[in-house]
Amino acid sequence: MSATVSQTLLEKMHAYWQAANYLSVGQIYLLDNPLLKTPLVLKDIKPRLLGHWGTTPGLNFIYTHLNRIINERELNMIYVTGPGHGGPALVANAWMEGTYSEYYPNVSEDEEGMKLLFKQFSFPGGIPSHVAPETPGSMHEGGELGYAVSHAYGAAFDNPEQVVIAVVGDGEAETGPLATSWHSNKFLNPISDGAVLPILHLNGYKIQNPTVLSRISHDELEALFVGYGYEPHWVEVADPDDYMAAHKQMAQVLDICFDRIAAIRAHALQEQSSGKPLSRPRWPMIILRSPKGWTGPKKIDGKITEGYWRSHQVPFSNMNEEHIQNLKTWLESYKPQTLFDEHGSLKAELKALHPQGFKRMSANPVAQGSVSRDLRLPDYRNYAVPVETPGVSMAEATRVMGRFLRDVLRANEAPRNFRLFAPDEIVSNRWTDALDASGKAWMANTLPEDEGNDTLAQDGRIMEILSEHTCVGWLEGYNLTGRHGFFSTYEAFVHVIDSMFNQHAKWLKTIRHIDWRRPIPSMNILLTSHVWRQDHNGFSHQDPGFIDHVVNKKAEVVRVYLPPDANTLLSVTNHCLKSRNYVNVIVAGKQPALQYLNMEDAMTHCTKGIGIWEWASNDQGAEPDIVFACAGDTPTMEALAATDLLRQYLPELKVRFVNVVNLMRLQSEREHPHGLSDRDFDAIFTTDKPVIFAFHGYPWLIHRLTYKRHGHDHMHVRGYIEEGTTTTPFDMVVLNRMDRYSLAIDAIDRVPGLREQATHIRQKFIDQLIAHKRYITEHGDDLPEIKNWKWPYPSSSST
Amino acid sequence: MSATVSQTLLEKMHAYWQAANYLSVGQIYLLDNPLLKTPLVLKDIKPRLLGHWGTTPGLNFIYTHLNRIINERELNMIYVTGPGHGGPALVANAWMEGTYSEYYPNVSEDEEGMKLLFKQFSFPGGIPSHVAPETPGSMHEGGELGYAVSHAYGAAFDNPEQVVIAVVGDGEAETGPLATSWHSNKFLNPISDGAVLPILHLNGYKIQNPTVLSRISHDELEALFVGYGYEPHWVEVADPDDYMAAHKQMAQVLDICFDRIAAIRAHALQEQSSGKPLSRPRWPMIILRSPKGWTGPKKIDGKITEGYWRSHQVPFSNMNEEHIQNLKTWLESYKPQTLFDEHGSLKAELKALHPQGFKRMSANPVAQGSVSRDLRLPDYRNYAVPVETPGVSMAEATRVMGRFLRDVLRANEAPRNFRLFAPDEIVSNRWTDALDASGKAWMANTLPEDEGNDTLAQDGRIMEILSEHTCVGWLEGYNLTGRHGFFSTYEAFVHVIDSMFNQHAKWLKTIRHIDWRRPIPSMNILLTSHVWRQDHNGFSHQDPGFIDHVVNKKAEVVRVYLPPDANTLLSVTNHCLKSRNYVNVIVAGKQPALQYLNMEDAMTHCTKGIGIWEWASNDQGAEPDIVFACAGDTPTMEALAATDLLRQYLPELKVRFVNVVNLMRLQSEREHPHGLSDRDFDAIFTTDKPVIFAFHGYPWLIHRLTYKRHGHDHMHVRGYIEEGTTTTPFDMVVLNRMDRYSLAIDAIDRVPGLREQATHIRQKFIDQLIAHKRYITEHGDDLPEIKNWKWPYPSSSST
Repeated sequence: MSATVSQTLLEKMHAYWQAANYLSVGQIYLLDNPLLKTPLVLKDIKPRLLGHWGTTPGLNFIYTHLNRIINERELNMIYVTGPGHGGPALVANAWMEGTYSEYYPNVSEDEEGMKLLFKQFSFPGGIPSHVAPETPGSMHEGGELGYAVSHAYGAAFDNPEQVVIAVVGDGEAETGPLATSWHSNKFLNPISDGAVLPILHLNGYKIQNPTVLSRISHDELEALFVGYGYEPHWVEVADPDDYMAAHKQMAQVLDICFDRIAAIRAHALQEQSSGKPLSRPRWPMIILRSPKGWTGPKKIDGKITEGYWRSHQVPFSNMNEEHIQNLKTWLESYKPQTLFDEHGSLKAELKALHPQGFKRMSANPVAQGSVSRDLRLPDYRNYAVPVETPGVSMAEATRVMGRFLRDVLRANEAPRNFRLFAPDEIVSNRWTDALDASGKAWMANTLPEDEGNDTLAQDGRIMEILSEHTCVGWLEGYNLTGRHGFFSTYEAFVHVIDSMFNQHAKWLKTIRHIDWRRPIPSMNILLTSHVWRQDHNGFSHQDPGFIDHVVNKKAEVVRVYLPPDANTLLSVTNHCLKSRNYVNVIVAGKQPALQYLNMEDAMTHCTKGIGIWEWASNDQGAEPDIVFACAGDTPTMEALAATDLLRQYLPELKVRFVNVVNLMRLQSEREHPHGLSDRDFDAIFTTDKPVIFAFHGYPWLIHRLTYKRHGHDHMHVRGYIEEGTTTTPFDMVVLNRMDRYSLAIDAIDRVPGLREQATHIRQKFIDQLIAHKRYITEHGDDLPEIKNWKWPYPSSSST
Repeated sequence: MSATVSQTLLEKMHAYWQAANYLSVGQIYLLDNPLLKTPLVLKDIKPRLLGHWGTTPGLNFIYTHLNRIINERELNMIYVTGPGHGGPALVANAWMEGTYSEYYPNVSEDEEGMKLLFKQFSFPGGIPSHVAPETPGSMHEGGELGYAVSHAYGAAFDNPEQVVIAVVGDGEAETGPLATSWHSNKFLNPISDGAVLPILHLNGYKIQNPTVLSRISHDELEALFVGYGYEPHWVEVADPDDYMAAHKQMAQVLDICFDRIAAIRAHALQEQSSGKPLSRPRWPMIILRSPKGWTGPKKIDGKITEGYWRSHQVPFSNMNEEHIQNLKTWLESYKPQTLFDEHGSLKAELKALHPQGFKRMSANPVAQGSVSRDLRLPDYRNYAVPVETPGVSMAEATRVMGRFLRDVLRANEAPRNFRLFAPDEIVSNRWTDALDASGKAWMANTLPEDEGNDTLAQDGRIMEILSEHTCVGWLEGYNLTGRHGFFSTYEAFVHVIDSMFNQHAKWLKTIRHIDWRRPIPSMNILLTSHVWRQDHNGFSHQDPGFIDHVVNKKAEVVRVYLPPDANTLLSVTNHCLKSRNYVNVIVAGKQPALQYLNMEDAMTHCTKGIGIWEWASNDQGAEPDIVFACAGDTPTMEALAATDLLRQYLPELKVRFVNVVNLMRLQSEREHPHGLSDRDFDAIFTTDKPVIFAFHGYPWLIHRLTYKRHGHDHMHVRGYIEEGTTTTPFDMVVLNRMDRYSLAIDAIDRVPGLREQATHIRQKFIDQLIAHKRYITEHGDDLPEIKNWKWPYPSSSST
């Protein structure tokens, strides 16, 4: 038994817990009669019973006990609810703390408010069944399972005053993302970061199965968490009815854990002050074994319910007389008259138990992004690569971006509110220079050879683990608590986090309409090592479809950029770092590639997002015969080369050259805030001339974005059609028919009457293509002129 | 030291390993001069140096040692290469075993063949750099990391004679999917399943970082695997140059592990014969700590290379004189003249070391799907629900499917070649009856309350773990080794395995063109608990975009079905279970829903995949004024209801009703093998009449599939536009403007001149919609007629 917690306090805490449980059951079942002042009848009960009870009492139990810790230790704490479907628990606690009524004045702290609190839950026009953006104090929905721990660590990084509780259901613990995220403890600095206290909630059952972790031995589970690098502390509820024993155990273990956390920090400070490197702490975590649906009905219709999977959702519906009686007995078991006064407010002696003001977990500003400040940004134009003539000089676009990010890291070193994240690809993706500004976060062991470029640093702000899930989970946690970051990843494997993106985009969509939530920094994603340059890896690493996935989400929260070169990438990067409430996706190459625009032109071009490149066009003052359009670095190069071929061989042909940076410009202004008006679109693409569009991704995405445009029937798109292997860069475009020759032939075939006129030229292009293909197969390399091709026309001012 | 392995044998094994290493380096570097018969010069070296060396020697080391075990114990073994980018190793071993030359006769077992073997690697027109479908003996590409262990277990299920080695890189081990897949050991039966021996290959570094697992203490890592339920055995290479010590350790540990595996099986058989339940074995696994790039150059340009991340890909390129000398020294260090005879063949004494025939891991038929037999299928028509009149009776489609699957399980009980997989959703998704045919696989602890419907069975063929990654990894392993299965999951969370789907689809595309590989059973995926009926969960659980993702892959390997009711679902299910080499995606609801087609009509309709429902149309013998089209159960109901409204209020309007089951029918026959010809498409949809299309998913998918069709400009699609919350089913369609009233109004607005004529009726529909919406918000439920709505017209024969 804890020496520090009196029996009296524990009894009050028990009552507090019972009040939370009562309010939770009320939310799931009651439409009216919230305090049971009249006998419970059918019409008091909701017609559709929806929600999840099973995890809820455990969440309330933990919450109640944490309140004591916050009060006694004056901590700044937030609560990440892995079992997010236990929404009633967090809503109940927010109401008891008064936060709910502050944010939603109609849901007042009285009987009328309680009635509304109950009714609105999982009700049309009301609130979702999960811990949602609408829930005060939440920065984690838990709709999809797997991210509670990585979100919690993300929230704790660079937040040294913060304690983040991560409640993990034993169902969620079976997911892959969760299973690896325990290793986040190797990346948490005990001085410059906050503390994370994971609580594995073993309630034994999922929807309809036992959980794996609840059905291995105590020793095995203990070993697992020792292996993950934690110090596990157990709270095991032996007798579900002996509440006081459970409270005592929980209070005691929490005191031990928070003593331990304090000792870890003190020890680290001591090490620091004596100039030693910090030792990696063995952080405490709690394994709480408690019955699913605890305090609920023992049996329903003769079948075990408490402590069994039957408690998972609504333990019983089908509201016959017996079930009404069951519900009545259940609700009354909490003795509501002892918990709430005659007005329906929580009794004063219980009100006194929760923390005050911003210390309330439901009102902690960190969870609402309210402590966010903007980044200090160096002038991105200083990182420009010189471009005197388009298509002559070469640069690695993402390497240039890395220099800018290096100085963003430096400029924000004091507030420590900017981090980079990548799955072991910072250097591969050419953000190498960023490592001059910060080492890579690493609290695990080091070896003498860990020097130089790959510096591991205990307080590093560059995060690398070979788990896209963990990287993005950290970044989300970091963003959701108001800080900024960038994630870079191989284009093909960003699909690993498709589902995480969905959840985050849904969160962003929802918070736009919640006025007490602040706009949070955008989630920034760089996709590189892209489909066209998988020189080392081939077919398995080729998939440009993430942007197809992204544009399914609400237009108001997604942005997609395909800068064709380094200076445009700089401009786009700067824009993304200043934005809030979006997911920004940038696709850019890391390989040496031709540069087209000087900084000034790049800024102009990126501001418009789409434009005619006059220097590559020869239709000035006239209608073009054909429009070449392109989006992405490789397509831009091939489209320019095709234009070049046509200029050489068919100089009379009027060609207009269009480049697209901001993909959303293609959509109608009615569909996306960045969309072009039909008039502007027609002015660029014409309404009746053939358009050959060389596109970075799957070609049908362009059709999808433009199917309502006037000239759509004239649009002919080349892109990745799922052909590839380990081969040369030029062979890749040949395999997918997006090479310069194929594009030039496409043009000849589509301009009315031209094919007949230009038979010989067309055949010449075919011959050149065949010759190049033969060269590649024989020599294992592209013809030199393919790699060193330069746009031969002098630059004129771009539009 | 192993008592059983002589020094002589170990020395020969060392030479065998060196031969494999030599052949691996040769693949990465050499274009010619494979046996170094002349002094190495620049033109002998490939112009583009691509591939990964780091993991390769370790893979060869393991392979060499496993060959001894296979020979001595006469085992049937396959090798799952988690670090699949170590392609050179597996190719080298296949060539040494003769398999490569059997499958690819040009790559003969002589100097000429060796030259081709080297040249083709990562070369245009050659083979990929990874362990790919082209690699004999592989059933796992390892292009994307994370699935080695789940694939291995999938291969072992129901394969009692099989040993599956799963080599896991310490990079891959950081991924989420891998981190949870270790728990697969709780689902492996030591009698009816094969054995899996995981080998965690700690080579210490990823692309440019140390690995987490190599930088925690020995004790911590040991505890982690004890916690995962394994018995870890260590092989730690202390001195990289003392090869013989390493060989001795490895041989000894392998003997211990295979003794242990044999003892586990013997013990289980003993338990079985004494009628006891089996105890869960603590299976052995190996932790092999060996240097990255082992046997490679110690330093290059003065920088540590062996045992460091610089060995990850090609350790040095930029072929100056010094580097040519480095390469020569490196290659000669293997003493190729002692390994290969003057013809370039592996010396006979080394040839004698590898197993023969199908015992060669590179020739094991299990890895090529060659031991696959078709399923025995009961007549699916026997499970039909009676439908006398369309739109009257109700059924839960997936529950009906579950009855059919139950009997598929029963009919294939003896061959044990069919399993079901779901992330804790078998019952939630209404496959409940399948549990009558098999329990759920479970080797972990049981409790007395585990009875009845949720029977856990040690030899169960229904697999549940709350990890979509693990479920699909198991299914893939099961499919890839020739067995059949079905995965069911919540529609929104199938995005968790987007990237796994990509990899599998790429594998399927590739094997279609490899004649020594057999067609493997299709991967079957049921998406249910779909977007329109997330009654308990709301917005976070709503995303119908997986099918958008699927149709990006090659048409020849993907199929998408949206059966509108139970009988069509049965027909589609039967079709999928008979197919091979596809990914079949079925979207179907689990909630009670209206039934439309009797079994005979369902068969006809599904055979065509798309069709006019004459009984719901009134345009017989005439051109319609408007076409209603639909795909999916909820859209079909709403489209029918809209048609009903129009029939009631505008009986003169000629309406044609079209239902789509096979989504690929919408594409052109030039794009997809299931595509309709333009003529057939036009005959159904007309070329000029308005089409109102109610679609299950995101509406633009329909536009994308039909943008080239003649009548496309007249197509108006309603679908999910990312609006949702926890609300009633009817409110969900209202929020997304796909409800019956909105569809009927769409029709009025699109038939030329009708809006002016039907102003009052249009207003009436608006009023009804508003009234319904108000009812929902007040009562928390749909109006009864919405739920019980029936198609009122008598059935006529459907087409």
